[in-house]
Parts: sequence; structure tokens; C-alpha cells
Amino acid sequence: MKQVSETEAARHRAKMEKRKAVQDAEVASKKIEKGLLIVNTGPGKGKSTAAFGLALRMLGHGRKVGVVQFVKGAWHTGEKDALSTFGDKVEWYAMGEGFTWETQDLKRDVAAAEAAWAKAEALMADPEIGLVILDELNIALRYDYLDLEKVVETLQARRDDLHVVVTGRNAKPALTEAADLVTEMGQVKHHFAAGVKAQKGIEF
Amino acid sequence: MKQVSETEAARHRAKMEKRKAVQDAEVASKKIEKGLLIVNTGPGKGKSTAAFGLALRMLGHGRKVGVVQFVKGAWHTGEKDALSTFGDKVEWYAMGEGFTWETQDLKRDVAAAEAAWAKAEALMADPEIGLVILDELNIALRYDYLDLEKVVETLQARRDDLHVVVTGRNAKPALTEAADLVTEMGQVKHHFAAGVKAQKGIEF
Repeated sequence: MKQVSETEAARHRAKMEKRKAVQDAEVASKKIEKGLLIVNTGPGKGKSTAAFGLALRMLGHGRKVGVVQFVKGAWHTGEKDALSTFGDKVEWYAMGEGFTWETQDLKRDVAAAEAAWAKAEALMADPEIGLVILDELNIALRYDYLDLEKVVETLQARRDDLHVVVTGRNAKPALTEAADLVTEMGQVKHHFAAGVKAQKGIEF
Repeated sequence: MKQVSETEAARHRAKMEKRKAVQDAEVASKKIEKGLLIVNTGPGKGKSTAAFGLALRMLGHGRKVGVVQFVKGAWHTGEKDALSTFGDKVEWYAMGEGFTWETQDLKRDVAAAEAAWAKAEALMADPEIGLVILDELNIALRYDYLDLEKVVETLQARRDDLHVVVTGRNAKPALTEAADLVTEMGQVKHHFAAGVKAQKGIEF
């Protein structure tokens, strides 16, 4: 058991009292409520995983969640199976083709991206849905499968009570400019570099 | 509908064939399977959310998940309620006290961190559990509530089939050195700066 002296305890208390005052003032200064456009990008792990974590949070509050996968090859079998536990509270559409290097067919990729985007628009229009996850939409935008300007416009025109999360590397600047919250997942260390393979429950 | 010319389609195909060869070789080169020590750190959003997304993935594969919250004030009510849907597949312990600036009581914080760590050790010892989330453990380590060396040693001595995720800002170097996968969540843009308050389904 760590020993804490009275002096140390008093110093800690004084420091934390100050910190609490700052914290409280900061929380009180925020007043706006709005549906957020969230972008999870960067080369690190956790972009989609954090989006699905947010789905969990939203479901915990009883709201419905919609998911459109723009790249079917992105392994989300674990999440999909787990979310099926929530029944019709989750609408999941695996719409895209595989990764671009799997299909090697540009026309098919473009058609799949357009169908996925149509599904995304339908989910965003459904007032029962509180969160829409557009998984790997950034990939479809990066390869110009979709019209960037049109996509950003539609995202900006979303309902006030709808949160949207867009995931994928290399988010386009026009998208991050329109977003309320942008997180860059940076890769500090990755187990693939140490020869560890993709494992059930971690990568898929 | 986006028009794709034959030349464009052929060029795309050739590029993607090359890319697929590189990708396949890379996947084939990874052979190790092991329980990972994962650290989600950095000032951005998504550290805990990605950990809970991983829980979802693990549950989708039918494995049990254990969660220890080292800071009770961290709002995870949404996730907790949603994960309760999975019954005894999830063991959740909200063990810590509030944020340090809420309690202002160093002795109480230390005692709470030690109790939380004891619970973490028990979960890590349970062979039925495939993933243990040590939420905000980095905060307890940062304030020296726990013995860093002892914690890292125990994490390194984990079972071969156990994945552990540690979350929280300011991960200690000794911990990231011991980790297999470290992701730094970087804050590019945050809606709090625009006066938006913490909202149900997003922050908690």
C-alpha cells in the first residue's frame, strides 16, 4: 500500500481544488447541442472500432444506429454479429466491394460506392436513427468514386439531431473542414511489424 | 453516375494488381498469434470508445470481456447499459473514484486505484476472459497511484490468449515499450472549442 503523508495530501487537495474550478467553468461555458459530423482518420488503429464503440454508446441510450460499409473487405464480422444482438435497433449494410486491390475493377467499385451512398442518404433521412456510421467512406472519396462536393453538402445538411461518423485514412480536407470533431489515429507501434498476424477479436 | 473510360479502367486494374501482390505477400509474412497488450493514448477522442468497440468485436466472436474503470467519473453509462445486453459475457467494474479534481483526496484515490488493480488482476487470471479493458489506467499511473513497474510486469506476464487494452492520456514510456500496439489519438478539431456541450450518445 502506497503511503501518503499529510503534507502531500494537503498539497494535492489545494492543486485539485484549483483544477476543479477551471474544469467547472469550462463545462459551464458550453451550451450548444447539435448532431455532430465526426471524422476518424489517420494511419493508426481504432478509426472504425471507435465508431462502433460510439454505436454501443448510442444503443445504450436507446437510439437506433445505421451502418454503411463502403468497403466490404473491411473485416467487421465480430462487430456485426455482436450488434445483431440489438435486433432492429441496428441497420447494417455491407454495400461496397472488397478493397480496391481485390476487385481491380474501377467500374464495379464506382457503382458499389454509389449504391452505398444512396443507402447512406436513406439512413440519414430516417428520423428514428440517431447515429449513422459511414465506414471507410474516406476510401471511396479518396479514389473519387463519389462526388466529394455533393457528399460534403449532404453531410452538412444533416438533421439537427443526427450524428454521423465517417471513417478511413486520408480524409479529404473539404470533409474535415465541414466536420465538428476530427481525430487522427496515429500509429506509434504496430504488432504487424513484429510479425504478428491479424487475429480474431482484434482485427476482425 | 460517374463515367469510367476503358483506358482509365485498365490503368486502375494494372495498378491494383501490383498492389494486391504486395498486400498478399505482407499478409503471408505474419505468422505469430498472441494476446496483445494494446495502449490507446493521446489527447484526442476515441481512446476508450475504440476499446469498447473492441469489446463488441470480441463478444461477436463469443469470448468474454472484462472491464475495470479506474476513473469512475469517466462517463461510460451508454456503453455500460448497452454491454449489459450481453449478460454474463461482460464483467464490468467501475472501481475508481471520480476525476482527481473531483475527489481532491489523494489517499482515497490511491486506495481506489489499488482496489481497481486487484480486480484487474482477478479478471486477467480468469481463463474464460479473452479481453480485459483497463479504462483510464494511464491516469492512475500518471499520478503514481500504482507502482508502474509492478503493473507493467503483470501486464507482460499475461496469458498467451489474453488481449489487454489500456486507455488514457499520457501513457508512461515503460508501458508503451512493453505494448504490442500503441495508438496515439490526436485531436485535429474538437466541437467543445466551438461551444458545443457534452451530449448523450457522444460523450457519455
